[in-house]
Amino acid sequence: MATNMADSFSYDTLFSENSSDTPLNVVKHAKYDFAVAYPAPETLPMDGLIQALRTAVDSDSMKTAQGMAYYPHQLGSQELREYTSEKLTSDRGFTVGADEIALTNGSGESIGLVIQALTNPGDVVLAEEFVYMGTLNQLRRSGADIRGVAIDDGGIIPEALDEQIAELTANGSKPKYLYTIPEHQNPTGSTLSAERRKAILDIAHKHRMPILEDDCYVDLRFEGETQPAFRALDDSGIVVYVASYSKLLAPGLRLGYFTAAPEVMRRALGFKQGSGPNQFAAMAIEGFLRNNLDSHRDSFSPVLRAKRDAMVASLEENFGGSGAEWSTPEGGCYVWLTMPEGADIASIRDEVLEQGVGYVAGTNFEADASGRTGHNCARLCFAFESTQKNTEGIALLAQLFKQHGAM
Amino acid sequence: MATNMADSFSYDTLFSENSSDTPLNVVKHAKYDFAVAYPAPETLPMDGLIQALRTAVDSDSMKTAQGMAYYPHQLGSQELREYTSEKLTSDRGFTVGADEIALTNGSGESIGLVIQALTNPGDVVLAEEFVYMGTLNQLRRSGADIRGVAIDDGGIIPEALDEQIAELTANGSKPKYLYTIPEHQNPTGSTLSAERRKAILDIAHKHRMPILEDDCYVDLRFEGETQPAFRALDDSGIVVYVASYSKLLAPGLRLGYFTAAPEVMRRALGFKQGSGPNQFAAMAIEGFLRNNLDSHRDSFSPVLRAKRDAMVASLEENFGGSGAEWSTPEGGCYVWLTMPEGADIASIRDEVLEQGVGYVAGTNFEADASGRTGHNCARLCFAFESTQKNTEGIALLAQLFKQHGAM
Repeated sequence: MATNMADSFSYDTLFSENSSDTPLNVVKHAKYDFAVAYPAPETLPMDGLIQALRTAVDSDSMKTAQGMAYYPHQLGSQELREYTSEKLTSDRGFTVGADEIALTNGSGESIGLVIQALTNPGDVVLAEEFVYMGTLNQLRRSGADIRGVAIDDGGIIPEALDEQIAELTANGSKPKYLYTIPEHQNPTGSTLSAERRKAILDIAHKHRMPILEDDCYVDLRFEGETQPAFRALDDSGIVVYVASYSKLLAPGLRLGYFTAAPEVMRRALGFKQGSGPNQFAAMAIEGFLRNNLDSHRDSFSPVLRAKRDAMVASLEENFGGSGAEWSTPEGGCYVWLTMPEGADIASIRDEVLEQGVGYVAGTNFEADASGRTGHNCARLCFAFESTQKNTEGIALLAQLFKQHGAM
Repeated sequence: MATNMADSFSYDTLFSENSSDTPLNVVKHAKYDFAVAYPAPETLPMDGLIQALRTAVDSDSMKTAQGMAYYPHQLGSQELREYTSEKLTSDRGFTVGADEIALTNGSGESIGLVIQALTNPGDVVLAEEFVYMGTLNQLRRSGADIRGVAIDDGGIIPEALDEQIAELTANGSKPKYLYTIPEHQNPTGSTLSAERRKAILDIAHKHRMPILEDDCYVDLRFEGETQPAFRALDDSGIVVYVASYSKLLAPGLRLGYFTAAPEVMRRALGFKQGSGPNQFAAMAIEGFLRNNLDSHRDSFSPVLRAKRDAMVASLEENFGGSGAEWSTPEGGCYVWLTMPEGADIASIRDEVLEQGVGYVAGTNFEADASGRTGHNCARLCFAFESTQKNTEGIALLAQLFKQHGAM
């Protein structure tokens, strides 16, 4: 039947100049996997999500079917945008209409669209000294010249930010915008205080520099007080606000969102390929959260806290007195481990993974990709493994670091 | 609390050069909505999809939760890729491994990735004379110079294709690839015979021109015989195969896929932003189709056939003898209406929609956007409205065409 089943067709000279032969990501999982970026699987409300779909279909099956039969609205499910609007008012203290919110395939799509709307190749973009890798990749793809801002345990240091912008501007490289995860930052776990946020907003206005606020971890606070969103402190339009249901519910749902000044939204959405995100997942999320947000929080908070406690206690037991330091975040998924200056835990990462413990070395998060500042740091996800595995895995990590001369 | 709640921040000079201030799509729905591209909502297996999730969670809740907690594999759900591999073998007659299939957010994402991998600005790309608008938009975004290939009721005319390629090549504009929907084409409803496909493959090899085969409607055949996929007739790698679960199940699930030669896949996936598509929808689809594909087909086929029959019968009754012609497709969603040469039904489209009948004018599908060939044509979706509305709506359409002097 086949006209050609033998010779292999050659694509030589047919590929676009922009394309590159990139190997697929192959992710290896260690026995103690602290390299992941996942919430606690045992708290995922699968039953609740399915029940929410069941309830929606039982209450109006034709409406549900029509909702699924239509290609989604460019902004995504109307019902989930309405719910998101209400949740932002009650949880984050600012009010935007459902039509000012765009749902996307995870918050990663939101961030990518905004980056494309604001970034020309060569533009300087500021971010915390250590930055979430997904955003780093998107910024690099847009040709951004990423510069890290000095941080301490409380996140971005406003005075350092102001000085850096002034210096860059004097050199003809005025930063285009600032990307930040202000709450439970990825990877360091730090949270910016309200005072620092206000100071940073003043600096942003002074230098006419928008803030891209990535609030994807805010729902995962299990102790202390949530700080006000940049967007709640300022409605001039200088803040582009991005958040997600991936951490609150499940990454596999792929639902994030953003809200921004109208022209920013229009220009960002102009880069969108295809229609809005999954209606099926949107229906499940809206139905579940509308009735169960508080009980869901009550169920996962103690789990996350216990996991963080186990990891931090094991760090104290196994790394105490070694000169290592680590963060003790009040939420999110990550502990940031800083070994003494001379310890190169980046170069031994693959071996340590083979021997049973996964982590992401700090070099992967360097804003400026200098390879200089992150070699003695690691991001440890405390949310995914059990408390027991957090305890055991950190003990093994110390042992392996010693074996490799890093401790 | 706010540092700035009054002055509006100006983004002047901050937007990227590639961005444009594009208004959001606003889709108006007519009373008789033949403008949509939706399958029959009453056949959407919402209950079955929910039941499939229920079954998956009941059989192994921890495995399910872990599947949702992980960010999806770049290629998407392993289980759905395995099922898709089996379905391609049994339904489309060619075998590729699960690792040679990439799941995407609808087939639109697949097509967009492949276009980016193969298209430089200015490249000539061939397609049927009338082409699905989503693909046209993506081709234009990549700067392709789209040329329409002559078609008849049986789709692309191989001899015309061969001549056109030779002519373009002689003029220094050798076509880069051919995009085609060979089965139940959107918008014309035509299907290429096996003979034509073989002839087109020979022409493709002769001119070293890949074929981007969009098989998204193949599952919606309700009479006649399914023709072999280009990909089943040729495994040299010259065919890139794209298909979708949007039409078979529900557009709102946003799940399509593609398979291609390894380097094409790697280069296409290099343009992917973020991780694989929705695991939640993938789990529901795989669970449902593995047990219910045949019964689902048995349930929607008579519905689609009755809807096509109603529309075609009403066309005969109301357009017969007017000089109008229409296709009678054996599957898919669309009837293609061709009015006599002088009738400009593109210019009256908005008024007719206001008066109750929606359609998409042929000018929107012109490969070359000349505005010359589609003014007397329209795509009519028979799948979405009820048989009664198909009958009534076509009668009203004839009345409105007469009222506007187009008939």
